[in-house]
Amino acid sequence: MAVIYEKVALIGLGLIASSLAWGMKRGGLAGEITGYARSAETRDIAREIDMCTVCDSACEAVQDADLVILCVPVGAMDSVMAEIAPSLRPGATLSDVGSVKRAVISAVSPHVPDGVHFIPAHPLAGTEHSGPRSGFAELFDNRWCIIVPPEGADRQKVEELASFWRALGSNVDEMDADHHDLVLAVTSHTPHLIAYTMVGVADDLGRVTDSEIIKYSAAGFRDFTRIAASDPTMWRDVFLTNKDATLEILGRFTEELFALQRAIRRGDGEHLHDYFTHTRAIRRGIIEAGQDTAAPNFGRTTGGKT
Amino acid sequence: MAVIYEKVALIGLGLIASSLAWGMKRGGLAGEITGYARSAETRDIAREIDMCTVCDSACEAVQDADLVILCVPVGAMDSVMAEIAPSLRPGATLSDVGSVKRAVISAVSPHVPDGVHFIPAHPLAGTEHSGPRSGFAELFDNRWCIIVPPEGADRQKVEELASFWRALGSNVDEMDADHHDLVLAVTSHTPHLIAYTMVGVADDLGRVTDSEIIKYSAAGFRDFTRIAASDPTMWRDVFLTNKDATLEILGRFTEELFALQRAIRRGDGEHLHDYFTHTRAIRRGIIEAGQDTAAPNFGRTTGGKT
Ligand SMILES: NC(=O)c1ccc[n+]([C@@H]2O[C@H](COP(=O)([O-])OP(=O)(O)OC[C@H]3O[C@@H](n4cnc5c(N)ncnc54)[C@H](OP(=O)(O)O)[C@@H]3O)[C@@H](O)[C@H]2O)c1
Ligand SMILES: NC(=O)c1ccc[n+]([C@@H]2O[C@H](COP(=O)([O-])OP(=O)(O)OC[C@H]3O[C@@H](n4cnc5c(N)ncnc54)[C@H](OP(=O)(O)O)[C@@H]3O)[C@@H](O)[C@H]2O)c1
Repeated sequence: MAVIYEKVALIGLGLIASSLAWGMKRGGLAGEITGYARSAETRDIAREIDMCTVCDSACEAVQDADLVILCVPVGAMDSVMAEIAPSLRPGATLSDVGSVKRAVISAVSPHVPDGVHFIPAHPLAGTEHSGPRSGFAELFDNRWCIIVPPEGADRQKVEELASFWRALGSNVDEMDADHHDLVLAVTSHTPHLIAYTMVGVADDLGRVTDSEIIKYSAAGFRDFTRIAASDPTMWRDVFLTNKDATLEILGRFTEELFALQRAIRRGDGEHLHDYFTHTRAIRRGIIEAGQDTAAPNFGRTTGGKT
Repeated sequence: MAVIYEKVALIGLGLIASSLAWGMKRGGLAGEITGYARSAETRDIAREIDMCTVCDSACEAVQDADLVILCVPVGAMDSVMAEIAPSLRPGATLSDVGSVKRAVISAVSPHVPDGVHFIPAHPLAGTEHSGPRSGFAELFDNRWCIIVPPEGADRQKVEELASFWRALGSNVDEMDADHHDLVLAVTSHTPHLIAYTMVGVADDLGRVTDSEIIKYSAAGFRDFTRIAASDPTMWRDVFLTNKDATLEILGRFTEELFALQRAIRRGDGEHLHDYFTHTRAIRRGIIEAGQDTAAPNFGRTTGGKT
């Protein structure tokens, strides 16, 4: 594949940034990759694993970059952007990978200098691990990346960013920020909050010991714990910044949950059976869409990056 | 390995029964395996895949059996047991694999003839698939099987059943029925209900299309859909028969969820961060206990039976 951006700068050097670096190297998509993280420790690790040219300041990293990608938690976008804004070169594309889009746009837009093209994006790919060592080139393969171009965005720059994500292995969709935030509240943010809650309840129950919960997790709970092992800072920021959509979906969720709870209390088996039959169809759709396989996964004893 | 029971009868020929049949064959644990399912279709499939000697009635299947295992949904245990009771041979062990134990004991015990040893059990292993074709010998490997011996049970018969489950690849624990039902309400039943609910909410949301939900499921929702694809009849019976424990855990869950919801509404990032940090530890415990691996799994593109 050919170089798409001569110089790419990554601000933040965690899971997503390191996966980007390895993915760019795999595809030969960037002439040069620079990067910066706030802590010396993270910068040292990034140097050690030879992820990119690690700079000693964010401004140095973005100097002359054709593409700058903000890879920090959503709540840190504002301050990071304020710092690098004066060093961005006119004509550059500025993007991010934040899990929430309306809040990132509000935080970043005011700082964007004239001539810099701000085109937010969100790759729907991640793991429950974080930090520079957790990244891998295949993370984005066959996953979706949602690009959220602001009104009046330069179409050529948008297309260029889309082709970059495709070259990283992703499928690309475009959406407006509010719709993105609602879709993600349903498919990601609320499920994460629920998983965190359930794991917290399990831990808090005096009559069942932690070791029992851990031993018997294979019965369904294990997937919840994987979700609930995700980075606390990232997720705090997601809920604080996608508040309205998350609260809306949570409201719906508790409404439905109460209806099922009442059916259990009353012994209304038909209601339960109908509900459970209905939800099976969605699973079939996901398998058909290639987002998962039909192979039974609860009984798995091994896992892998592929 | 040596034969543990000369003749084993499986009543119900679905996922668990077929996994038992393949597991017994793998280990050479039974001299002969017979089986019965209520529908001719299931019996025909079981014959076609050569899972066991399929009989034309449940009574025929259990004739002279040394071990009879009830592998039907919890709500069907009563009628199945009433049917086979007269055909059980004195000295035989009678067990089951039902996901709830107190209710199965109440349903089955009254029918147990003198001289038959009823020792309930529950293998904590399954997948979201059902029917005879979905079973595989490895399902129970490294999983737990909880045996729930009634008061005054014959210790030798209990030990024999435990060695049978160990020979199938499982670890064995003993517990009383009420504690089993509470532990499972936490680690399995409530998580399933929550997953079903979330998938239902997603499907019901007019402003987000089904195809969007399916496309973007990799962001966390996918694991919920896998859980929510499980058999509706089995799960209806679980909730109807483990009502009290499920409702208790659900009550705790909504309490916690409301606290997190309030934290989001108020912008209390510290509360969220603390909660999310705490839940990470449980995940680590599960990985250390060997119930899962640390390999990132959200990004998986393939799956398998191993
Ligand atoms: N993980 C996922 O599943 C996933 C998926 C899609 C999108 N995202 C989004 O991707 C972004 C990065 O996530 P990640 O998983 O790569 O996180 P990560 O592995 O935890 O890395 C975060 C990086 O941001 C830096 N950082 C954190 N707080 C900062 C602050 N206040 N100021 C400046 N830098 C700060 C960290 O620096 P130090 O290491 O020096 O602390 C680290 O280099 C987030 O916006 C997240 O919403 C995540
Ligand atoms: N799946 C899991 O994850 C899992 C894990 C641990 C324990 N369990 C327990 O294992 C038991 C069996 O589950 P499974 O997953 O093997 O289910 P399955 O694949 O759906 O098979 C159920 C079997 O029971 C028969 N059956 C259903 N309703 C019946 C009725 N009213 N009367 C007589 N027979 C009936 C079915 O016969 P037809 O095919 O002829 O309809 C089928 O052969 C349940 O008690 C469940 O709680 C399940």
